[in-house]
Amino acid sequence: MATTSPSGAAPASGGPVDPTLIEDLVAASRILAAEGVLDGYGHVTMRHPGAANRYLMARSLAPELVRPDDIMELDLESNPVDARGRTMFRERFIHGMIYKARADVMAVVHSHSPAVVPFGITQVPMKPTFHMAAFLYKVPPVFEIRDVAGWTNMLITSNRLGEALAETLGDNPVALMRGHGNVVVGPTLPIAVFRAIYTEVNARLQTTAMMLGGPITYLSPEEGDIITNKEPGDVGRAWNLWRTKALGNPDLA
Amino acid sequence: MATTSPSGAAPASGGPVDPTLIEDLVAASRILAAEGVLDGYGHVTMRHPGAANRYLMARSLAPELVRPDDIMELDLESNPVDARGRTMFRERFIHGMIYKARADVMAVVHSHSPAVVPFGITQVPMKPTFHMAAFLYKVPPVFEIRDVAGWTNMLITSNRLGEALAETLGDNPVALMRGHGNVVVGPTLPIAVFRAIYTEVNARLQTTAMMLGGPITYLSPEEGDIITNKEPGDVGRAWNLWRTKALGNPDLA
Amino acid sequence: MATTSPSGAAPASGGPVDPTLIEDLVAASRILAAEGVLDGYGHVTMRHPGAANRYLMARSLAPELVRPDDIMELDLESNPVDARGRTMFRERFIHGMIYKARADVMAVVHSHSPAVVPFGITQVPMKPTFHMAAFLYKVPPVFEIRDVAGWTNMLITSNRLGEALAETLGDNPVALMRGHGNVVVGPTLPIAVFRAIYTEVNARLQTTAMMLGGPITYLSPEEGDIITNKEPGDVGRAWNLWRTKALGNPDLA
Amino acid sequence: MATTSPSGAAPASGGPVDPTLIEDLVAASRILAAEGVLDGYGHVTMRHPGAANRYLMARSLAPELVRPDDIMELDLESNPVDARGRTMFRERFIHGMIYKARADVMAVVHSHSPAVVPFGITQVPMKPTFHMAAFLYKVPPVFEIRDVAGWTNMLITSNRLGEALAETLGDNPVALMRGHGNVVVGPTLPIAVFRAIYTEVNARLQTTAMMLGGPITYLSPEEGDIITNKEPGDVGRAWNLWRTKALGNPDLA
Repeated sequence: MATTSPSGAAPASGGPVDPTLIEDLVAASRILAAEGVLDGYGHVTMRHPGAANRYLMARSLAPELVRPDDIMELDLESNPVDARGRTMFRERFIHGMIYKARADVMAVVHSHSPAVVPFGITQVPMKPTFHMAAFLYKVPPVFEIRDVAGWTNMLITSNRLGEALAETLGDNPVALMRGHGNVVVGPTLPIAVFRAIYTEVNARLQTTAMMLGGPITYLSPEEGDIITNKEPGDVGRAWNLWRTKALGNPDLA
Repeated sequence: MATTSPSGAAPASGGPVDPTLIEDLVAASRILAAEGVLDGYGHVTMRHPGAANRYLMARSLAPELVRPDDIMELDLESNPVDARGRTMFRERFIHGMIYKARADVMAVVHSHSPAVVPFGITQVPMKPTFHMAAFLYKVPPVFEIRDVAGWTNMLITSNRLGEALAETLGDNPVALMRGHGNVVVGPTLPIAVFRAIYTEVNARLQTTAMMLGGPITYLSPEEGDIITNKEPGDVGRAWNLWRTKALGNPDLA
Repeated sequence: MATTSPSGAAPASGGPVDPTLIEDLVAASRILAAEGVLDGYGHVTMRHPGAANRYLMARSLAPELVRPDDIMELDLESNPVDARGRTMFRERFIHGMIYKARADVMAVVHSHSPAVVPFGITQVPMKPTFHMAAFLYKVPPVFEIRDVAGWTNMLITSNRLGEALAETLGDNPVALMRGHGNVVVGPTLPIAVFRAIYTEVNARLQTTAMMLGGPITYLSPEEGDIITNKEPGDVGRAWNLWRTKALGNPDLA
Repeated sequence: MATTSPSGAAPASGGPVDPTLIEDLVAASRILAAEGVLDGYGHVTMRHPGAANRYLMARSLAPELVRPDDIMELDLESNPVDARGRTMFRERFIHGMIYKARADVMAVVHSHSPAVVPFGITQVPMKPTFHMAAFLYKVPPVFEIRDVAGWTNMLITSNRLGEALAETLGDNPVALMRGHGNVVVGPTLPIAVFRAIYTEVNARLQTTAMMLGGPITYLSPEEGDIITNKEPGDVGRAWNLWRTKALGNPDLA
């Protein structure tokens, strides 16, 4: 496993990564754009499969345009192993600090998922409307950047802010970010992608249910727990579909 | 007609099926994905045209990717005639038990149709807003899995649960499933597909009408009955369009 | 000008029609599908350019699939000039009776335009939210088929029903049909298509404005009248765009 | 720098423009159509890069169809330098008068952005729901054409009306136009395009948040000011994506 390099020098690499896994990460980026979770902004990363203190992330680029060559390796303080002049995302600290705080997390998505933003600025708690969003059975916490940094540009541009966000996230799969977006994590890349997509879908369904009005029966904590932790659904079926379509683009090479 | 095989042995086949009918079933799967009723999940089946105690269903696969080779034959207990190592949908029991209970049903759709989910978790009854959804003239019942199985993963993973769902469905064309989705049946495959699509459309229109507010004039039971049972509309016109587009994909072969 | 043929014989043709005009009608059908006004159902027609008592309409076919060969000629009682075994739309009487009642109308659209259906089943009057929908400055009347025919299949399947609908339409550009859809007319084919599209768009905008709530400033009757009758907008700019895209399909030929 | 020509003669040109900048303007037009801000109507312009009293605008044409040859040069009274028989937009005065009033503005978008229209006809002030729309931190003013011209066709068809609109705009980035649409300006073409797109997105998010109800935490004026004026986001990342897709169309040449 790679160790963090001394301050000032580039950190050592965690070692080469199977090109199929890089392709998975490229696919994840394009999938999230195709499904309307990301637009020109936002990012998805994965922990280095061979080095728990490294993670993989595209250079600063619109998610739909990411190709294998754009994937960079960073340490958990978000220093690049081999920048080669590539510009990095200003909010990469979100990812590094979550990987540092959460040994169980292998992938992280940060988005401005449009149906979810309203839940971060109102007092309405997100709740799971159906089994596909069972992972929301504990209400996602909301990160208020004002509480830790006062008036800001709303971005997570330092390890300090990344750490504060990771603290709000706690052991949840999703945290909302007031006036900004959300962050979603998972024990595998496909699960993180799946959760990011169904967080968006669930927000739409919950909004509609609330407009219909009256008492709403959400999944119970017991149902949410069973589906999330004991009898998980078949994420691979959707992942296979999404990946096939995302890499069908001949521009990928 | 095929008979159910003794426990432990694979059931006998109901006989070969016209490839055009298989192609119809492949088209149905892709159509429902194209129209937003299915995403990576859900399934559509048809009763075996030559054996009332067999039905046809794709192996476990995202609906958009189904091809003729993926179609399997099952008996009404949902045992495969010739699995050849193919993985089956965990919720196939929905289909088998409905074919068993409903001799009039020749096709079944199970989906998480997004606009419909909110009607399954609120107290708002679905009602037909226009003639295309006339088949909703009797309010669709809502299946509550808690009532038959307590805390679960919400899935219909056994014949017992499939039977309970079929009982809730009764002689209706549609039943909602709380926190999950819905099931739609029809006397032909095109009619089941048509109903699944217009159940989704009607949910959108009813939601909008309720947001506009005030008294709403739904189709009357008499109007619903005339259109559904006495002077049915021309399903073939839409089916022809949908099938043409679904099979236009050269990947089909 | 052609005259109506004696009962029993096919009516005489109004004469040959410029193929470019036929192509316009094919384009109109595809445009309305592309813009979400029509799905597998609905139809658009134009009055015969050389014979005021004849009109042109596709055979019974999904709008997206219409080609020049599908265009038929009918008299105002909706008898075909030369059926050649082609099936006609069951609701063609909508068109014939409107052309009969309204000498100023050169094109008619009948649709189940989804955002508009809710306005036909609630008490909420449609009003113009912006200049593109100025033609709605007089509240569109709502046709209630129960008033003229009691319990029905909701369809306009006779000249008698077509006449009743034309009477409700009066001298308006749009009439809503309760539990069914709407009908839109215009002095040219592009204007009828334009109005059908912006009736749908306006319904979406009005629904949103009503959800925001509070007093809403619609176009005044004076503004509506100026735009509709005195200083009309440039319909050709959009028509040119829509037609180019609709006929870009190489299948047309 | 070009000077305004004597009345009656065509104004002098501000000089040749780098073809890449013309291509940017063509891309901007297509981007705004692709993102749903423009349909067959609306326009985007840029100030002449070498002559502050000239601006560049397509001839009257649907935005999606604009090509480099369609770009014309106009003075700030919106007279064409070299019309060559090309028809101009009737509302070009919006652009000329804003360039005249606002030396800081280098690009202007006028649209009927659908989610925004409802905010122009209700009393609901637009507010920034997230950092992407921070530029809305001062409530956009609403232009009421009745106040300056009484009953009209709603269009800005003269320098007098353009001047009145520019006055309402003041030093804001966005002004709504009651019953019509909006106008968005920026210090660069990509920023104006970015703002037009996120004004539309913000309108959707604010509408959803208001439907969820309760107290809503918008960006504070301090947060809006920081993002807009002191630590601006990376517009180039989205612009690069949008431009790549817009010019991917081989019809551009």
